[in-house]
Amino acid sequence: MHAADVLTAAMARARSIACIGLDPRPALIPPALRATALAEHGDTRAAVASAFLAFNRGLIDATCAHVAAYKPQLACYEAYGSQGLACLEATVAHARMRGVPVVADAKRNDIGSTAEHYAQAFLGQAGGLGGTPLPGLDADWLTVNGYLGSDGITPFLGTQPGHGIFVLVKTSNPSSGELQDRLLAGADAGPVAEGMARLVAGWGKGRLGACGLNDVGAVVGATYPAQARRLRELMPETVFLVPGYGAQGGSAADALSGSRADGSGVLINSSRAILGAWQGAADGAAHWQDAALAAVVAMNRDLAAARG
Amino acid sequence: MHAADVLTAAMARARSIACIGLDPRPALIPPALRATALAEHGDTRAAVASAFLAFNRGLIDATCAHVAAYKPQLACYEAYGSQGLACLEATVAHARMRGVPVVADAKRNDIGSTAEHYAQAFLGQAGGLGGTPLPGLDADWLTVNGYLGSDGITPFLGTQPGHGIFVLVKTSNPSSGELQDRLLAGADAGPVAEGMARLVAGWGKGRLGACGLNDVGAVVGATYPAQARRLRELMPETVFLVPGYGAQGGSAADALSGSRADGSGVLINSSRAILGAWQGAADGAAHWQDAALAAVVAMNRDLAAARG
Repeated sequence: MHAADVLTAAMARARSIACIGLDPRPALIPPALRATALAEHGDTRAAVASAFLAFNRGLIDATCAHVAAYKPQLACYEAYGSQGLACLEATVAHARMRGVPVVADAKRNDIGSTAEHYAQAFLGQAGGLGGTPLPGLDADWLTVNGYLGSDGITPFLGTQPGHGIFVLVKTSNPSSGELQDRLLAGADAGPVAEGMARLVAGWGKGRLGACGLNDVGAVVGATYPAQARRLRELMPETVFLVPGYGAQGGSAADALSGSRADGSGVLINSSRAILGAWQGAADGAAHWQDAALAAVVAMNRDLAAARG
Repeated sequence: MHAADVLTAAMARARSIACIGLDPRPALIPPALRATALAEHGDTRAAVASAFLAFNRGLIDATCAHVAAYKPQLACYEAYGSQGLACLEATVAHARMRGVPVVADAKRNDIGSTAEHYAQAFLGQAGGLGGTPLPGLDADWLTVNGYLGSDGITPFLGTQPGHGIFVLVKTSNPSSGELQDRLLAGADAGPVAEGMARLVAGWGKGRLGACGLNDVGAVVGATYPAQARRLRELMPETVFLVPGYGAQGGSAADALSGSRADGSGVLINSSRAILGAWQGAADGAAHWQDAALAAVVAMNRDLAAARG
């Protein structure tokens, strides 16, 4: 099934366009999980991986009926090496078991022959020494960086049916404009981000799902709403993955500014506000799953109100 | 010790500016290693990881006296998940034990708070649940993508002494020009790659080692020699990591075109020509380490001849 159709169906089922960033950090782990992991493993990588996995599974179980996707941030797991990556693998498997699409936020990029290996790692399967196909992470979507152009992108397209990518176009961080806002000269003049948007639109050509969106998405930060509106004109059939809502300062209206006329085409991410919700809730340490669910419900309500 | 000084010392010791890409793939594994791993683990990820590690250790042992650095390509390991990453960790530890600097070729990039986790993963250490510092991969250098601007870069600078980064400026692949050659308008007009080069020069300001080079390097492909010469003008104190020599078509003269006037400032990478040397050598399957060493010696000779 086409990746954009799977995502659209997940949004309809959950009545949500929210994506929850599964970005665990030691400071976000509830005390009981922390104590259990430390007692079992000492203050080691194995303890972190064990606590992260228990936290992620609990978050997924509590929220899976109310979110459109989960987006684990690779860096949070890679910081704990091979044990961290094993935790990520188990996390993705758990989300898939609950039927929720997964966006691996890895921002990978390389020349063609290497990009093939990243595609195997995140979206497909690699070959064993004897030729047996060995499954990779098998995420639904992967974030990628398009600085290397087409031959760093095409290996991700169509390796396995049902997978898609989000290409960084306009990122949510304060310094994103240092390169992305520089103006290009010549034909198709405009900011570098618009040049990237034109490439993204080209890569997605002829790849529409039944929902009218294609499987070459774009990362467009909530923190630059005017640019998101302009980028939508350049990428009418593209799913926007929108970081920057909430903790980074983007409002619901900001996050929705790249929507299509019918309100479709955006997947809004929130991470810290959901994972850390228990820290601000009454008796939150004991009821951290409830706090996460309440934060998701509040996010869905906030987005629904802004959509009108 | 400053990362550029460590690298310069390694070049002097080995009388080489060669970097060997440790990019193992099943097709490059000599038959005896393949058979051993398959017998022990079956056709699994564990077999791949075991064979890759035996191959890498053998390559490092055979060539460590004659190369300036090793550059493992993350994608080759990530394709085999947590087992692949464990193999990478053991590979890096082995190279360090042999005293050769390691460049982790990961091309990581993200917003500031996330880039910190990547810095921990590759160059520093992360915190455990109880606050114990947990060592990461501890590579000497990391390749990064600068599309997100300064706040995606600064977390990598100075987290731990003795570490450096190489920022993608002009990549070696055929489609690199789709974005990197687009012309920027306004002040400092010129290709996007030159805009990135100016950012790189800025990030490296005030970070010189005793060798006269700083620890914010640049990736500049051997396949675009005229652009490499121009980029050197913009980044006079920057170490260039040069992919594209050999298998990708760059000659020794091409690869050296970004050198400084005294010949310094370039680290030339080769991967397939070294790792696959046994496949073209007489009795290569039995003497794959000798074949790799011979290929390294030939590469050093080729580069020395071109340097004159």
